[in-house]
Amino acid sequence: MSALYDDETFFAGYSGMVRSKEGLAGAAEWPAMRALLPPLGGLRVLDLGCGFGWFARWAAGEGAASVIGVDVSERMLERARTMTDDASIRYLRADLEAFEPAPHSVDLVHSSLAFHYIEKLDRLFGAIHQALSPGGRLVFSVEHPIFTAPSAPGWTVDGAGRKVWPVDGYQIEGPRTTRWLGRDVVKQHRTVGTYVTLLLRAGFTIDHLEEWAPTLEQVEARPDWAEERQRPTFMLMAAQI
Amino acid sequence: MSALYDDETFFAGYSGMVRSKEGLAGAAEWPAMRALLPPLGGLRVLDLGCGFGWFARWAAGEGAASVIGVDVSERMLERARTMTDDASIRYLRADLEAFEPAPHSVDLVHSSLAFHYIEKLDRLFGAIHQALSPGGRLVFSVEHPIFTAPSAPGWTVDGAGRKVWPVDGYQIEGPRTTRWLGRDVVKQHRTVGTYVTLLLRAGFTIDHLEEWAPTLEQVEARPDWAEERQRPTFMLMAAQI
Repeated sequence: MSALYDDETFFAGYSGMVRSKEGLAGAAEWPAMRALLPPLGGLRVLDLGCGFGWFARWAAGEGAASVIGVDVSERMLERARTMTDDASIRYLRADLEAFEPAPHSVDLVHSSLAFHYIEKLDRLFGAIHQALSPGGRLVFSVEHPIFTAPSAPGWTVDGAGRKVWPVDGYQIEGPRTTRWLGRDVVKQHRTVGTYVTLLLRAGFTIDHLEEWAPTLEQVEARPDWAEERQRPTFMLMAAQI
Repeated sequence: MSALYDDETFFAGYSGMVRSKEGLAGAAEWPAMRALLPPLGGLRVLDLGCGFGWFARWAAGEGAASVIGVDVSERMLERARTMTDDASIRYLRADLEAFEPAPHSVDLVHSSLAFHYIEKLDRLFGAIHQALSPGGRLVFSVEHPIFTAPSAPGWTVDGAGRKVWPVDGYQIEGPRTTRWLGRDVVKQHRTVGTYVTLLLRAGFTIDHLEEWAPTLEQVEARPDWAEERQRPTFMLMAAQI
């Protein structure tokens, strides 16, 4: 992951994406994620895979006592630091495959579209559970298993001319290599059941599971979102200890 | 549902299925379901959509204090009664859309492949929650949302010759009419997220969510199960109050 986001061409492509330029407002699923978050006033917040720090800055603005943004890409953290002058935010370079936050050091862990890159998610969920204070929450999004499963992820047309999403290999978990922004990107495909099971095994209680879809009103405003009603791209989950 | 299973041709076809003739042993997902059940000794058990009573008889054999099998089809219940002479089992004809078991009257509710026929599943989950005694469990299977979603459910071949499951309409919940055993059958498609949300809203804690797949060893013994690894047919869930 570090090498990927630190690659110049990939980084330029990533920086040009709507959600990179506009931040949370450019992320279709953000209102749904926000609805899962508790009031942030006074909370110690940890953001895993913080990227350019959009969430960290929002959390600080909402009154979080402290925000630690963690990312593996030094290049992304540099950009995040140049956009921040809030003393309550700290950026930290770490590989989430090995990151060990201090026990009972945070009240809320947030992560947006990062966990599907993690191989040892059981280890990370265990580390997050330990890091949370009593009553603490984990709120995260990942690419949906229906989205990550296919050997050839992309819309196809069936014999009757219907546009369909071609699911295969759903139960065969493990790496999927796809082309994104001109680079080979490796994601870890897991079933919905495995996400739930890993959370329960780590000791979490499941609070929420949502497969994000735009409303009909949203599709009217953004016709390019219509296909999200045909198959989900994002899965949002919330859990507490 | 009543009219469907009471239709002579459909009933004959259903009666001829492996899982109808061999019972639990003929259901591929049964070992996984069984693993979710507590020891049954002394428990009051309710089986929703009991069909020919295979589960009810098994539960009685495991030492359940009482077993009530509920089904909407009188024809199925007649057959169930002729196969039973266990005083701890009682069969009851009721429509699950309106069934109201007595509060705190059971310790375990089981249901196999019935809930995807139910329109008012929020009502039924509420009734089940009320019926369970403290510490009680609900264990059920449904057809998986990936299986029920498509407008044309059936394997198709993509442009590159890959056999794929054609997902569309995943986020569009509601009735799906499919042909089965020579009859139009109406199932209710719901997302995974909705099953989870309805359970949480009814007051349940989620204990387990599993998308059943055969192991490689099972596929070696039953090569016709191989496609179950490409997309799930069954979703198994366990919850407690």
